[in-house]
Amino acid sequence: MTDTLNGHKRYFVENTWYAAAWETELDDNDGRMARTICETPLVLYKTENQGYVALDDRCCHRAAPLSIGRVEGNCIRCMYHGLLYDPSGKVTEIPGQSNIPSSMKVRSYPLCSKGGMLWIWMGDPELANEDDIYHFEPLSQPDKWRGFDKGDYLHYDANWLLIVDNLSDFSHVAFVHTNTLGGSEDYAYNTIPENIEKMDNGFSMERWDKGSKAAPFHAKVIPQDELDNPLDRCNITSMYIPGIFLMETIFAPAGWDAEKNDRSLCREYRNCQFMTPETRNKTHFFWDYLHGFDLDNPDISKSLKASLLEGFMEDKLFIEEQQKLLEESPDFVPRFIEADEAFAHFRRIWDHRLRAENEANPLVQKENKKRIL
Amino acid sequence: MTDTLNGHKRYFVENTWYAAAWETELDDNDGRMARTICETPLVLYKTENQGYVALDDRCCHRAAPLSIGRVEGNCIRCMYHGLLYDPSGKVTEIPGQSNIPSSMKVRSYPLCSKGGMLWIWMGDPELANEDDIYHFEPLSQPDKWRGFDKGDYLHYDANWLLIVDNLSDFSHVAFVHTNTLGGSEDYAYNTIPENIEKMDNGFSMERWDKGSKAAPFHAKVIPQDELDNPLDRCNITSMYIPGIFLMETIFAPAGWDAEKNDRSLCREYRNCQFMTPETRNKTHFFWDYLHGFDLDNPDISKSLKASLLEGFMEDKLFIEEQQKLLEESPDFVPRFIEADEAFAHFRRIWDHRLRAENEANPLVQKENKKRIL
Amino acid sequence: MTDTLNGHKRYFVENTWYAAAWETELDDNDGRMARTICETPLVLYKTENQGYVALDDRCCHRAAPLSIGRVEGNCIRCMYHGLLYDPSGKVTEIPGQSNIPSSMKVRSYPLCSKGGMLWIWMGDPELANEDDIYHFEPLSQPDKWRGFDKGDYLHYDANWLLIVDNLSDFSHVAFVHTNTLGGSEDYAYNTIPENIEKMDNGFSMERWDKGSKAAPFHAKVIPQDELDNPLDRCNITSMYIPGIFLMETIFAPAGWDAEKNDRSLCREYRNCQFMTPETRNKTHFFWDYLHGFDLDNPDISKSLKASLLEGFMEDKLFIEEQQKLLEESPDFVPRFIEADEAFAHFRRIWDHRLRAENEANPLVQKENKKRIL
Repeated sequence: MTDTLNGHKRYFVENTWYAAAWETELDDNDGRMARTICETPLVLYKTENQGYVALDDRCCHRAAPLSIGRVEGNCIRCMYHGLLYDPSGKVTEIPGQSNIPSSMKVRSYPLCSKGGMLWIWMGDPELANEDDIYHFEPLSQPDKWRGFDKGDYLHYDANWLLIVDNLSDFSHVAFVHTNTLGGSEDYAYNTIPENIEKMDNGFSMERWDKGSKAAPFHAKVIPQDELDNPLDRCNITSMYIPGIFLMETIFAPAGWDAEKNDRSLCREYRNCQFMTPETRNKTHFFWDYLHGFDLDNPDISKSLKASLLEGFMEDKLFIEEQQKLLEESPDFVPRFIEADEAFAHFRRIWDHRLRAENEANPLVQKENKKRIL
Repeated sequence: MTDTLNGHKRYFVENTWYAAAWETELDDNDGRMARTICETPLVLYKTENQGYVALDDRCCHRAAPLSIGRVEGNCIRCMYHGLLYDPSGKVTEIPGQSNIPSSMKVRSYPLCSKGGMLWIWMGDPELANEDDIYHFEPLSQPDKWRGFDKGDYLHYDANWLLIVDNLSDFSHVAFVHTNTLGGSEDYAYNTIPENIEKMDNGFSMERWDKGSKAAPFHAKVIPQDELDNPLDRCNITSMYIPGIFLMETIFAPAGWDAEKNDRSLCREYRNCQFMTPETRNKTHFFWDYLHGFDLDNPDISKSLKASLLEGFMEDKLFIEEQQKLLEESPDFVPRFIEADEAFAHFRRIWDHRLRAENEANPLVQKENKKRIL
Repeated sequence: MTDTLNGHKRYFVENTWYAAAWETELDDNDGRMARTICETPLVLYKTENQGYVALDDRCCHRAAPLSIGRVEGNCIRCMYHGLLYDPSGKVTEIPGQSNIPSSMKVRSYPLCSKGGMLWIWMGDPELANEDDIYHFEPLSQPDKWRGFDKGDYLHYDANWLLIVDNLSDFSHVAFVHTNTLGGSEDYAYNTIPENIEKMDNGFSMERWDKGSKAAPFHAKVIPQDELDNPLDRCNITSMYIPGIFLMETIFAPAGWDAEKNDRSLCREYRNCQFMTPETRNKTHFFWDYLHGFDLDNPDISKSLKASLLEGFMEDKLFIEEQQKLLEESPDFVPRFIEADEAFAHFRRIWDHRLRAENEANPLVQKENKKRIL
């Protein structure tokens, strides 16, 4: 764990976009909801103008939660003593009081919608640029890709990097998901990551499993007379800071050649998983799994959701046990294996970004100066 | 929170009477019970002589709880190895041992009954004076006021001052209790505290709501053909250290004049709420709500208890959420509004009392001396 | 509590055999299980060769628990990424990787079976000698003693020394177990420990209760026409480091003389209770209760198990309440009574062993040196 940065030093990279909530989560909750992100309790709400606002979820008067307040037009009212906040976080009304001091306010955070997901910027608002949000196109292409009716949400009692770690090495699919997402323990022995690309803000790689049987989740949604046909399976995965995982999965007839053969012979999936730290020990997990064939058959999405959830529960067991053991063993030093190459890169660029932000933090600078004197 | 006093310094004012338990709570529990007050685990028990005793709830031998012991005459026996304690806290019998060292004892605390409530003094027993206990007369006037069959008890996962704060500003009635105890959000805009009296040991004030409809809890217990009659509603509240809240409520015909008109035209209530810190994060809450009309109709008390409990649950939601947010945000500084005048006074006199007690504490004096040298 | 040894200093004596699990616990759990002992999470498993292995329950790669892994022959496989461990704790296979660095390993602990119980050595493996394990013979003498079908297990939310303490003074039987294991409060007044023997590694003593009625648990399993016969009851108890309790119980006809009369006139029991710290606040408790008469009547064991469990629940209430009160009262100093003589000896030898181990610990030596300079 990146636990070396304490005290004044921050634990999370702040100048980046975090997945905060599906739009539909707000719709299902009277237009506002509480969500803690990076150890900061927030209220998220939808305005009359169809905009989205994120404020500290603590009335500046008495720390009552705004998230059990009431949206009024573009504002939100604390329902304890009735203070009204505008989208910038300023109090604009105190019932029974005419004068409002300018100190009556809470912090407001940039919050944008893209592809049905709300993205939040926890750092310096001056640096926030909506164009930097990763756009996962399949979420906005219903004619090509069919996902769930609503994006799904899971909660993990674990540091988000343990989930990033899980998704960075697919050899675990062989052992954890043998009967759900994998299909055989051979997957760990016979396949290796290829074309690993290391970027400033993440990594991508491919993993080919050639001439094998359909993985269990796939076998459930294809014509049953095709079950014995050998397949080449390809996963192309990308992971970006702070915890954005995107995947293309292709099941092709065995021997299929991307350069020579037609893509229509394949069945394809697109998958997004967004990991956002609630605290350093708990994680918000948002996901959707989209298929690019038989778009009009709603049973496929239902089957995929059930299969994937079964697989995620298998991961969750391991990941939450890891978290408990790591909390009990603060001195544990993980030993890297060859398959950790991509994740090791991710940790390096995360630590680099975090250190750079901390060094630019005036509070940290002050503390360092003291140490030198 | 008054969290600035740590280490040797005490957190709670000790030389004051705290509400400890309703007499009926002991009667319902074989004459003895465990109760933690100001972070001190205590056993409370009733003697053969109808007296009341409070001792540290920790046998001096092995820390077994005396509260699962057995009352014998005026004494209580630890049911682990059988040590017998007298009301002063001295061990008077050790089964199988003839000699009893004088060090075998626990601390005893002054405990008195008044109006059906047991009051405890956590500080210097020399300073305890029963006459200083606030006497809430309606509890002892069954011919004038009818309350519940037994005083009621709630437990809060919150610092007791958050409840004191809640009761110090009735503008919250407008928003939190619109449909239960309030009646309209206008209450916060149209009424203000009057006649605020600031005392050494608390405050009192009035709040008039003129020409409005009967509040929901009142509307349920008056003749239904009076529902449309406009009323003047007056709440006269007092709050005393450490957390004693008393209230007179008058519903008068609109335009009623206390100096000219007859009191019999009104319907009145009396209400007591005693807040006692269990720890700095948890509170014992004792209350009764008495009515001064239709004394022989038992349905009125039942209706009032249900209405008030519904209202208290609305408060409890806010107060316990505040507690959680404050624990997560140790640096939060509340911003005062005009309506906080009374509570701000209460915090000042509490801090003053606490500081005075701490300065008189030999342990604290010793620590201060060290710091100067 | 022995809480004076902190930081680098260890809290538990390590060079001793702790009861870790009944063999049958592993059999009931696919041959492997998680168990934390002395604040160390372990996996225990049974090999193809009928041996037993204890390893740190944390894969050296990513801290996944080996205890949800798979036993393969004499090895255990981590089911996250498939690393295979041999009984010495060395990784012998990493799927997809040919070279295995020698740093890929976890700690292995000596683990032996004796009398159906697995015993673990948490300290220096060089010093572990199986002959030092206390052998409780009745567990291996089914022709003389009949116990439960399987040894039983309870979990306590309390420091194990509070249970050792409980078993070191049987005067508690009078008050805690009046209607289950005791029979009368007179037991505390009329009987005293005799022949207390203080040893380097524990103590033993006798307690005679002469001419009394059959204790309730005994009365349930003897012929009902004997209920009024007066009995002499003798408990001979031994307690060894770290928390091994063995007891012989004899119910003889009143006036029976061990030197002159025949043992066959008596009914006898043998009882073992092994207390192992899970953490400093939680305890594993293993026990069996064997009878030496009517061996072929299975109802006797069932009745004894029910009676004893009822008694243990009475103890557990006190012990877990003690634990809570002690955690709330870190400054509490227990006051000893005469009946504590045996337990006081046990604490002394435990503290002596602990101090000796700590002084031999290089980390502690280094810290002490710093303090002197």
